[in-house]
Amino acid sequence: MAKAIVLGGSRGIGKSISESLKSINCQVFAASKEDIDTSNLNSVKHFLQIHKETDILILNTGGPQAKKFSEITEDDWKKYHNQLFLGFCLILQKIKINDGGYIFLISSSVIKEPNSNLIISSAYRAAFSEVFKILSKNYAKKNISCINIAPGMINTDRTKELVKNIDEYRKTLPMGRLGEPEEIGNFIKSIIENKIKYLSGVTINFDGANSNYIF
Amino acid sequence: MAKAIVLGGSRGIGKSISESLKSINCQVFAASKEDIDTSNLNSVKHFLQIHKETDILILNTGGPQAKKFSEITEDDWKKYHNQLFLGFCLILQKIKINDGGYIFLISSSVIKEPNSNLIISSAYRAAFSEVFKILSKNYAKKNISCINIAPGMINTDRTKELVKNIDEYRKTLPMGRLGEPEEIGNFIKSIIENKIKYLSGVTINFDGANSNYIF
Amino acid sequence: MAKAIVLGGSRGIGKSISESLKSINCQVFAASKEDIDTSNLNSVKHFLQIHKETDILILNTGGPQAKKFSEITEDDWKKYHNQLFLGFCLILQKIKINDGGYIFLISSSVIKEPNSNLIISSAYRAAFSEVFKILSKNYAKKNISCINIAPGMINTDRTKELVKNIDEYRKTLPMGRLGEPEEIGNFIKSIIENKIKYLSGVTINFDGANSNYIF
Amino acid sequence: MAKAIVLGGSRGIGKSISESLKSINCQVFAASKEDIDTSNLNSVKHFLQIHKETDILILNTGGPQAKKFSEITEDDWKKYHNQLFLGFCLILQKIKINDGGYIFLISSSVIKEPNSNLIISSAYRAAFSEVFKILSKNYAKKNISCINIAPGMINTDRTKELVKNIDEYRKTLPMGRLGEPEEIGNFIKSIIENKIKYLSGVTINFDGANSNYIF
Repeated sequence: MAKAIVLGGSRGIGKSISESLKSINCQVFAASKEDIDTSNLNSVKHFLQIHKETDILILNTGGPQAKKFSEITEDDWKKYHNQLFLGFCLILQKIKINDGGYIFLISSSVIKEPNSNLIISSAYRAAFSEVFKILSKNYAKKNISCINIAPGMINTDRTKELVKNIDEYRKTLPMGRLGEPEEIGNFIKSIIENKIKYLSGVTINFDGANSNYIF
Repeated sequence: MAKAIVLGGSRGIGKSISESLKSINCQVFAASKEDIDTSNLNSVKHFLQIHKETDILILNTGGPQAKKFSEITEDDWKKYHNQLFLGFCLILQKIKINDGGYIFLISSSVIKEPNSNLIISSAYRAAFSEVFKILSKNYAKKNISCINIAPGMINTDRTKELVKNIDEYRKTLPMGRLGEPEEIGNFIKSIIENKIKYLSGVTINFDGANSNYIF
Repeated sequence: MAKAIVLGGSRGIGKSISESLKSINCQVFAASKEDIDTSNLNSVKHFLQIHKETDILILNTGGPQAKKFSEITEDDWKKYHNQLFLGFCLILQKIKINDGGYIFLISSSVIKEPNSNLIISSAYRAAFSEVFKILSKNYAKKNISCINIAPGMINTDRTKELVKNIDEYRKTLPMGRLGEPEEIGNFIKSIIENKIKYLSGVTINFDGANSNYIF
Repeated sequence: MAKAIVLGGSRGIGKSISESLKSINCQVFAASKEDIDTSNLNSVKHFLQIHKETDILILNTGGPQAKKFSEITEDDWKKYHNQLFLGFCLILQKIKINDGGYIFLISSSVIKEPNSNLIISSAYRAAFSEVFKILSKNYAKKNISCINIAPGMINTDRTKELVKNIDEYRKTLPMGRLGEPEEIGNFIKSIIENKIKYLSGVTINFDGANSNYIF
């Protein structure tokens, strides 16, 4: 039975992924903020003493509040540098991914189309995407697939915080709706269930045709 | 029962997609070159008189032989302009995709990292990817998802023609192997089977971590 | 004295480039539509019998009228396939660029952010950008630099045709104005004047901070 | 007379930029590591107490030694997070760029094609490129152009540290040579000299046709 660790697994997209993986009989550890707080490197190190290996790893964490550039403090930068970047680096430096495994990064569509309200998220998620891309080539040697999923606006509590009038906002989207967390959960599930391994080193925008760049 | 048309459905990647779709009880028309030759616009128009609508459409066609730029003739350009670009445009101008359907384009990783031996393919597949991206926003209104899959080197007869010494070549790839057509077939199948719709307007490189650009 | 050929050199961006090159004492042939009509391959071949070599080549041509996908005819596709793609290919197959020379392609920002009204332009300009990228590596061996300039909205007659209310439109742009053709002319001039050669194989968006993708 | 601040202005690319700007009569402050060490936020804050405004700002700093991912320490991450990212953010939060000015970021071609030996540089330079892109839209309102130059291998002391056998390495490059720092200096000079403003919000790869992605 494959073992899976889902960071941020107790709510939103992470929760959907956890449930999807359970439905295919993975042994899922759905980590909550009590289990690991990636903004706190000691918490990360503590987690790594308990969780030393896995078959499937989902790197997922909430983002910061919307803030204008001029309002971002040095403490904000440092906190989210840990939460969105350095915590994940420490994890990948330590944890063993078993041969034939999978690592999914849940980043954001803002890495490709950066957003002035989500500047911290745009910056550090892009930074980690660079690390993840580089590492995908090493992991490939052990048949471990690395897939970066970059969601657009998904129907989660976080989105409700970010967008004031969701009913109006929805109408501006090509599909007239937000994405559902289950779509991402099911997408990941089906890749694993079907043992699709050659999909690796790729960033997959998951945004209902909303982005405007070609590729 | 969902209806699917798979162009180039009798061999290689197209055949794998056809079989995957049959396994989830789609009613598949696996078009061979006898049914439709996209390099011949009359053949395309004839096909469109018979096939007027579908739930799922797979735009897939083989590419040209490797040729250096200086050797490409005007006839080569025109033939492959039809085969890789214009034939697909005529199809999308005419055929009805039923609401809630899917269109998959099988392009190539050369659209993003163009290849001096596959210059025709790099050019016209990129051109059609532009059209496909634009149309994804219109199709989104009818809940039709448009997904561009850009395969790297896949284990097909065509790849055996292009690469002289596959055993040596394999070793240069991050995963030490070519992709299998079944991986693409299963990938498409699982998106449809799980009714994942919010994945649209995206180009998904499918190359075993071989590409070098970030996203 | 360096020899320059500027296609579409009698108006708009091409005219500005011609004038900029004259100001640094290039011997400029500013080709008008009477000299070469790239939508007509016989015209292209005739031009190539007269103009066999150059130091500097500017590949520049107007685009098609705005048209919705459903309205584009087979003749439209074929005409603009010649004008925006095949004519330029024939030129680069035949003309000799002298060692140490330059080729500039004036494409469009729609190659990266395709536009539903400019679908033909998005498609074929992207296709030629692929060819141009591939060739840049060969030309590099002879110290010939290939630079793809992708303008956004520039203050030309063509833009006035495309945009109904330019005064309103301007206000939606980050700089509150269109680009001036002279900015592109001067940009090209200064690269040549300063013998900057290592800038090659690159697409330079020239759009006053209007695009939204990161790179 | 325009005022320019060039960070890392005492050697390599920064020195060439300083000299180029002096040649067009800018009043250049070529900051050395003694003036400002961006890896030390106190040094950055001290610098900002002295230098409160400028017309032209060149954000430029050396990168870290080559290191494999597994060897990078927490201190390395934190140091270079300051040096390549946070120091620059603090500067842009505080310093006034005068209307009509320019900001150039000297990043690296690794932001687009990340490099396993330059993983720190790939990550943090990409992160700052996101910030810079977002800010370019605000600066545009004051006619300030933001240009991200992403050099490939340039003939500097740093490159000699990174590449063991430069004579062998050169031969693998399309132009058979490294770029010269003067090419970048002259490129920047000519943009300023010619008052080219509409070039903004763009990343310009400067690598002698070496990169392989289309755009």
